[in-house]
Amino acid sequence: MRQVAILGIGQIKVDEHWDLSLRELGGNAAFAAMQDAGLDRIDSLFVGNMLSPMVSGQNQLGTFFSDWIGLWDQESVKVEAACASGAAALRAGLMAVAAGEMDSALVVGVEKMTDKAGHDVTAALATAADADYEVEQGVSFVGLNALVMRRYMHEFGWQHEDFAPFSINAHANAMHNPYARLHEKISVDKFEKSSMVATPINLLDASPIGDGAAAAILVPAEKVASLQGKPRVTIAGSASATDSIAVHSRKDPLFLSAAYLSSRKAYDMAKVGWEDIDVFELHDAFSIMSALSLEASGFAERGQGVRLGLENEIGPTGRVPVCTRGGLKARGHPVGATGMYQIVELVQQLRGECNETQVDGARVGMAQNIGGSGATILTHILKAEQG
Amino acid sequence: MRQVAILGIGQIKVDEHWDLSLRELGGNAAFAAMQDAGLDRIDSLFVGNMLSPMVSGQNQLGTFFSDWIGLWDQESVKVEAACASGAAALRAGLMAVAAGEMDSALVVGVEKMTDKAGHDVTAALATAADADYEVEQGVSFVGLNALVMRRYMHEFGWQHEDFAPFSINAHANAMHNPYARLHEKISVDKFEKSSMVATPINLLDASPIGDGAAAAILVPAEKVASLQGKPRVTIAGSASATDSIAVHSRKDPLFLSAAYLSSRKAYDMAKVGWEDIDVFELHDAFSIMSALSLEASGFAERGQGVRLGLENEIGPTGRVPVCTRGGLKARGHPVGATGMYQIVELVQQLRGECNETQVDGARVGMAQNIGGSGATILTHILKAEQG
Repeated sequence: MRQVAILGIGQIKVDEHWDLSLRELGGNAAFAAMQDAGLDRIDSLFVGNMLSPMVSGQNQLGTFFSDWIGLWDQESVKVEAACASGAAALRAGLMAVAAGEMDSALVVGVEKMTDKAGHDVTAALATAADADYEVEQGVSFVGLNALVMRRYMHEFGWQHEDFAPFSINAHANAMHNPYARLHEKISVDKFEKSSMVATPINLLDASPIGDGAAAAILVPAEKVASLQGKPRVTIAGSASATDSIAVHSRKDPLFLSAAYLSSRKAYDMAKVGWEDIDVFELHDAFSIMSALSLEASGFAERGQGVRLGLENEIGPTGRVPVCTRGGLKARGHPVGATGMYQIVELVQQLRGECNETQVDGARVGMAQNIGGSGATILTHILKAEQG
Repeated sequence: MRQVAILGIGQIKVDEHWDLSLRELGGNAAFAAMQDAGLDRIDSLFVGNMLSPMVSGQNQLGTFFSDWIGLWDQESVKVEAACASGAAALRAGLMAVAAGEMDSALVVGVEKMTDKAGHDVTAALATAADADYEVEQGVSFVGLNALVMRRYMHEFGWQHEDFAPFSINAHANAMHNPYARLHEKISVDKFEKSSMVATPINLLDASPIGDGAAAAILVPAEKVASLQGKPRVTIAGSASATDSIAVHSRKDPLFLSAAYLSSRKAYDMAKVGWEDIDVFELHDAFSIMSALSLEASGFAERGQGVRLGLENEIGPTGRVPVCTRGGLKARGHPVGATGMYQIVELVQQLRGECNETQVDGARVGMAQNIGGSGATILTHILKAEQG
């Protein structure tokens, strides 16, 4: 396999974009990435999206976007793995370029979730769970995560407020990210007093949905020296693993085995360990997932993920900086786009473009994107190399 | 890139399977392929599907099926390109194995279209067209094809009955395929008298939907000698190309430019020309598409595709045998599964397992899978090599 580099990145603000259609959301992120890369012709397009057939009545998003973007005639396809669709599209594009089958790939994660009057986005999101054995019983997606969080608190003796640092850190970092959905600092008091959604998950445990799109352009690494003095960013590790789709079928619902497997594969491929990761964009769809992700990926012992937050180790100057641009919690979670926002944000960190939330000397970044309640998990490791 | 071979195939009958869930449909085809290959452990799963989020309320089909099939922990993903989802999943699996990223890939095309009370499958199918500029105007999918067929008849002077041989051939071949949806011979008279759907497309111009699943297992070619005396089947050519998603945006709506581009790329990759193709499984969703596919792929001049049928050249003993197991028209068109049925059927031909519809000495087979009204088109060329 050829080594692959990220030549350009693009994103739009996660928001309620009533003035932008699905076409424009994805197109604007793609155009930004093409401008950043200085390319107007790309061999292929990989789109990550979860909801468009249900919410926008539009399938075949690969060709839908290659048509709109002007990549006429070029190969394109859509990849779907629920909320991990973004990273799954990245991995499909990566394999295509790595295989030598094409010399450039545009990867776009895109989701239009608001302004479709009358459509039930909560029901559409529930298609990530097991339709026959979970959704049929009336369990919503947040409900599943609430069951996991409650069990975790019971098993390991944590209180609800112990999860506050995850949300506080995400909100604090998002203050400095113009592309973030929420620009509002929060406190432990505010965290504890926010509205209950599904006990013990309250509004500030949960990430907000939104319209969004983020994109990256992949090329063989040997074709890139450095970008105007900025380091070359390569995809050093990439892996995907799965667990049962229904939470109740897992040997241990408090352990993300697909995060364990995909992170270990990615570490091996990138020839690093968790202690080498300078910045970790994890999938904090709910605060409980931050803890489970840190534990399964090697950063904390079982049941001790929350301790990293309580000990102030997750901020940009901490031992394990997470969600440095706001994470799902405050940048926002436009589901099929989220995995690509994580990649764009890692590239910003490795290029040193993050200003107030820049992790000093960041050279190795990791992103973990989760589909369903831990059913599909992809881990990517990016490295900065001085040109 | 490593050369890739097809080690095993599996399929279920296309039908109204009221007794089988989505899980069981895909699972049964996968198990058949695993049994055929003699493998019970496979590195990865690629699922082609178009409608399940809408029709079955189930997304994340990669993990949904890896869980059900017992490929626990393994990488999996779903690929969607409307009715070309099956071939798009094959191509994703092919690139993963060819890149050396994994040593085996199970590719399953699956679609559950019946028995979901109250759900409008016609509306779900329309998501393959342009939601903003086609569907919004009230044009159905068959309506779009009808406009193209009418224009073709006008431009090139053909009558409706000139298309009859495509359907007659498909129905005749399906008589000998136990997995086909329809087992009924038809005549020109019956073709001309069948019910009108959208002028000039009548019931016998159109392929029937159905529940179905077909699967193949891909491995590096060097790991396969021959299969119990049967030839080794390799994927010699694979290409994907796109056109505008809306028919009205095309320079020429009577020419499938994505079929032209993908077939030429596949010919180049396989080092063959159209005259070397012994059997061609084309995408006869509507009879007009058979003509356009033959023309764009080099088998006929512009506007002359129907002549191959009228001159009796498309049967198993003809110059260009098409739809040798019934095609979409009579084997049936379970949309996201169709591309994989074509692959399974080509392997059957190249292994010499087709009995009454066996093409004598078939060594090179081609499959063409179309998403939307020609928007995404994938062409695959398989070769038989004596072990």
